Amino acid sequence: MANIKDVARSAGVGIATASRALNGTGYVAPETRKRIEEAAQKLHYSPSVLARNLLRSRSGIIAVMVPTLSNPFFASFTQDCEQLLLGHGYKTLICCTVQPQNSEQDYLDMLRSNLVDGILTATHSFNDDAYRESGNPIVSLDRNLGGNIPLVSSDHCRGGLLAAEHFAFAGCRMVLQICGSDVQNGHLTVGEAHRSCREALLASGVKSEILFTDWNRWDFTYYRRTAAHCLDAYPEADGILASDCLAMHVLTEALQRGKSIPDELKIIAYDGTDTARLASPALSCIVQDTAQLARTAVDTLLARIQNVPIPEPPVCNVSWLQGTTCP
Amino acid sequence: MANIKDVARSAGVGIATASRALNGTGYVAPETRKRIEEAAQKLHYSPSVLARNLLRSRSGIIAVMVPTLSNPFFASFTQDCEQLLLGHGYKTLICCTVQPQNSEQDYLDMLRSNLVDGILTATHSFNDDAYRESGNPIVSLDRNLGGNIPLVSSDHCRGGLLAAEHFAFAGCRMVLQICGSDVQNGHLTVGEAHRSCREALLASGVKSEILFTDWNRWDFTYYRRTAAHCLDAYPEADGILASDCLAMHVLTEALQRGKSIPDELKIIAYDGTDTARLASPALSCIVQDTAQLARTAVDTLLARIQNVPIPEPPVCNVSWLQGTTCP
Repeated sequence: MANIKDVARSAGVGIATASRALNGTGYVAPETRKRIEEAAQKLHYSPSVLARNLLRSRSGIIAVMVPTLSNPFFASFTQDCEQLLLGHGYKTLICCTVQPQNSEQDYLDMLRSNLVDGILTATHSFNDDAYRESGNPIVSLDRNLGGNIPLVSSDHCRGGLLAAEHFAFAGCRMVLQICGSDVQNGHLTVGEAHRSCREALLASGVKSEILFTDWNRWDFTYYRRTAAHCLDAYPEADGILASDCLAMHVLTEALQRGKSIPDELKIIAYDGTDTARLASPALSCIVQDTAQLARTAVDTLLARIQNVPIPEPPVCNVSWLQGTTCP
Repeated sequence: MANIKDVARSAGVGIATASRALNGTGYVAPETRKRIEEAAQKLHYSPSVLARNLLRSRSGIIAVMVPTLSNPFFASFTQDCEQLLLGHGYKTLICCTVQPQNSEQDYLDMLRSNLVDGILTATHSFNDDAYRESGNPIVSLDRNLGGNIPLVSSDHCRGGLLAAEHFAFAGCRMVLQICGSDVQNGHLTVGEAHRSCREALLASGVKSEILFTDWNRWDFTYYRRTAAHCLDAYPEADGILASDCLAMHVLTEALQRGKSIPDELKIIAYDGTDTARLASPALSCIVQDTAQLARTAVDTLLARIQNVPIPEPPVCNVSWLQGTTCP
């Protein structure tokens, strides 16, 4: 592939002149510029994006970090971010942090080295200090990293309240709330949903038990085992609140055991992705607006990158989607 | 942030010397090197990855292009690739081409400009010439791009045969095969599955109809409408073969209409992702081995990047997963 030296030689000018002409970084006499442009065209010269970015100290790349794409909530969030970023001229690096050898530190180093211009993180890892100390543009989804890192999240408090209202209205006496163990340290804002759900249930005279699942586990086998465990260990539960994938496993497992849904067991899925809406019978869901979450996260990050002062990001909407598993 | 000029000034050496010392690209007297390294440490100097990559003419980035992450097959393939590439020191750019303003040409330009070192493409777009003319490392999943671009795919011929055998064994008289319209031009190797399934069905005296869905449509609303259309337009069909997401919609729609599954209608899902395995009743599936597909694609691409001669990539495994929707 031709480089700028080849173009300069072919046009009979120095490299600096060719560079000024092709990058538009200084004066070049019109006839010389024409000669250089013709040479570039003839030689199929393509300016090095790497070199140009080096000059501008920007890469045009944003890293999006999620635990796993096998979870439809994160897949949807990632795709929405990718499409929005593309509209702003940015490409998206994807980093799945579910594996133990995950590379969050790598990406923070890339941010420091200008190989990425910003990071959107939705991971559940615990190394918050590394994020806080970065000092570069970072926006967090659903995880309070502290410092001055903006936090984007849904109105989980309302989400939990909505779930409790529907369980109570459906006549539940004991609701099992399944949530990730990482909400226990207050990191994850989705913990708000479980807190507000539990408070509202207790206030309505409905019992609530909280079951914590293992940290950062998102696989089929684990979900299936957890669903079976819930039905074994909490036979008195007549309501279950769980994230989409787990709720689908609970539904499958309950049907296999001959439970009548929703008569004997009410299920509410938290997230409300398209995948949850594929269940038969249809899952009743608390829906997070992933499109709004992505838009808010991207807008906030771009403002950080451009050093524009921004107000606190708005809390994103949640809504109730009536299915068959809970009236 | 300190740059190499700051380090050179602090160490009292020229920029070229500092660069030689820090990049290990030439001789520097030991005591001078020590002084430079101390200055770098004191100033928290982090070498610019952009600059280093420019020298090596590589970016350490691979682009993975898929139609959409909302399809669990592509989400799984993308994540498997990302994890494997990470193990080889590469980061993954993600490009979802479902949108009309998709940016495949952008990524090909990035490849030409060394901003990405290679492309794994699983898109369904038609601009094959652009890929063929690229001349840079590209590997294709399931889409025959022609030229010398390696093609990685499952043994779809066997996949189709397996489906036909199970439909015939289950006593089906008329099977509806739903597939994307883009298989019609012979582009997509998954067309092989439908061809071999149809041939085997006809040879067993089972009727087969093929319904082509719109090109590049992957959304919930379209799937739901298509599922309803299939049951409306082909009331005599007692077997349906469709990709995972569509199969789940067909199942949901059929159950809502009071169809008895599998007595009145047998359903086989093609792909067999974890999502399909969440259906109730459990979908019978032809399973593509996404982990093997990702490994084969990544190995082939890395060999192309390193200019290692490679044999044709092996055809990847498919297998039958017994569910409830077809015996």
